[in-house]
Amino acid sequence: MNDITLDQAWQVIDAANEAATTQGTAMNIAVVDVGGNLKAFLRMDGAWLGSIDISIKKAWTARAFDLPTAELAKNSQSGGQFFGIHASNQGRVMIFAGGIPLKKGDAVVGAVGVSGGMGEQDQAVAEAGAAAFR
Amino acid sequence: MNDITLDQAWQVIDAANEAATTQGTAMNIAVVDVGGNLKAFLRMDGAWLGSIDISIKKAWTARAFDLPTAELAKNSQSGGQFFGIHASNQGRVMIFAGGIPLKKGDAVVGAVGVSGGMGEQDQAVAEAGAAAFR
Amino acid sequence: MNDITLDQAWQVIDAANEAATTQGTAMNIAVVDVGGNLKAFLRMDGAWLGSIDISIKKAWTARAFDLPTAELAKNSQSGGQFFGIHASNQGRVMIFAGGIPLKKGDAVVGAVGVSGGMGEQDQAVAEAGAAAFR
Amino acid sequence: MNDITLDQAWQVIDAANEAATTQGTAMNIAVVDVGGNLKAFLRMDGAWLGSIDISIKKAWTARAFDLPTAELAKNSQSGGQFFGIHASNQGRVMIFAGGIPLKKGDAVVGAVGVSGGMGEQDQAVAEAGAAAFR
Repeated sequence: MNDITLDQAWQVIDAANEAATTQGTAMNIAVVDVGGNLKAFLRMDGAWLGSIDISIKKAWTARAFDLPTAELAKNSQSGGQFFGIHASNQGRVMIFAGGIPLKKGDAVVGAVGVSGGMGEQDQAVAEAGAAAFR
Repeated sequence: MNDITLDQAWQVIDAANEAATTQGTAMNIAVVDVGGNLKAFLRMDGAWLGSIDISIKKAWTARAFDLPTAELAKNSQSGGQFFGIHASNQGRVMIFAGGIPLKKGDAVVGAVGVSGGMGEQDQAVAEAGAAAFR
Repeated sequence: MNDITLDQAWQVIDAANEAATTQGTAMNIAVVDVGGNLKAFLRMDGAWLGSIDISIKKAWTARAFDLPTAELAKNSQSGGQFFGIHASNQGRVMIFAGGIPLKKGDAVVGAVGVSGGMGEQDQAVAEAGAAAFR
Repeated sequence: MNDITLDQAWQVIDAANEAATTQGTAMNIAVVDVGGNLKAFLRMDGAWLGSIDISIKKAWTARAFDLPTAELAKNSQSGGQFFGIHASNQGRVMIFAGGIPLKKGDAVVGAVGVSGGMGEQDQAVAEAGAAAFR
């Protein structure tokens, strides 16, 4: 099937949760499906309230453009070719690190988004989550 | 502590998930914390996409007014004393069954919201989730 | 001056707060100025979170149409001549009791909005607040 | 108790109001609770209408990310690791000075937001408010 299942979403979230715990940060972790729609989410105790929305939107963005949000960021700063893209899609586009597509072969079938720490921390936790997807 | 923890949120969601599986329906299940902010969420495989938002808003509504959304519904029909309340809070107020507050003693510390079936089905699954909260 | 001052707004809010305390309810209390813009607000401990927005919108509505929201309600039910008005103004129109204009002579210079209880309770507290305006 | 009370919110607002009066500026002053929800607000006579929303959102932002908005600003400019964050949370994120968390020990239990003057003025008034929190 060409979509992510709930079981798979949980594997991703569990792995991300574990990586965040090891890292010592409190994260919001979201997974979206092939349609970009929310599949599963958790907010660790003490994680930023403002990152609920951001984690979901990072996941959406990674699926919507089929690339990591950290990559999108490179072209979306002032002066870049995609500058202004963050204003599109009713503000759903997040252009900083922490969103990663989930792939079966070459096909993107969902994405994980993480928010709650510095950019590098979010990225590392999202990568740990994505690595658990199979 | 005067808030719901992630562990508690998962107990609620697990119980609701199990009840929905037994019932044979595919549900969206959301839990919010004491401030009405999303704590955890899952969408069962095959559950309605349009109910992602509704389940989260049912949970929010149950916390925001400290009562089951099924109760709020009674006073929010045309001619009722709260008719029009669904236009408040930027459309976050859901006035049909499926949202239930989670209480510690008399204090509401969060809520569960379920959406994906008929009103009675949503309500039954939410009740199963709320019953698992302790 | 043809507007409400902060001192006047506080007198209204203090009186409403006192009336709510006497009544034994926890209310959200808002005052808007001649332009319908928020002037002062308080949420009593334990008051409904969902009524923050509603109290502010009741005050806005009372100023926007220069009449008590309880009056507007009469014509805004299904079948009434203003049915559907709650969908106007980006959802700012509240059509149930608890919003009352504040007048100097015949001129409306602001309004008070109260939300947190049953319709009659909200109305009584708003009336107590409005009575303190001079 | 793990939240801010109305009495505490007023102490913060009173202190900020007094500081703004001394400073000679007309400010909007908002306090939110542990969940980011509005607890109390006042607009001084003559204060900018456009800053009602901004003051409330500064307070929300300071709670949502558990840091002063002036700090968030540093990482949210073009080229920074959080550039684009202002597009998240339905436009609730304010990334300039004037929002400060309110803490009990290490726990953030609310926040104050001030808007109506230059960045340094807003910040100074917010700091005066926050200093009154205990």
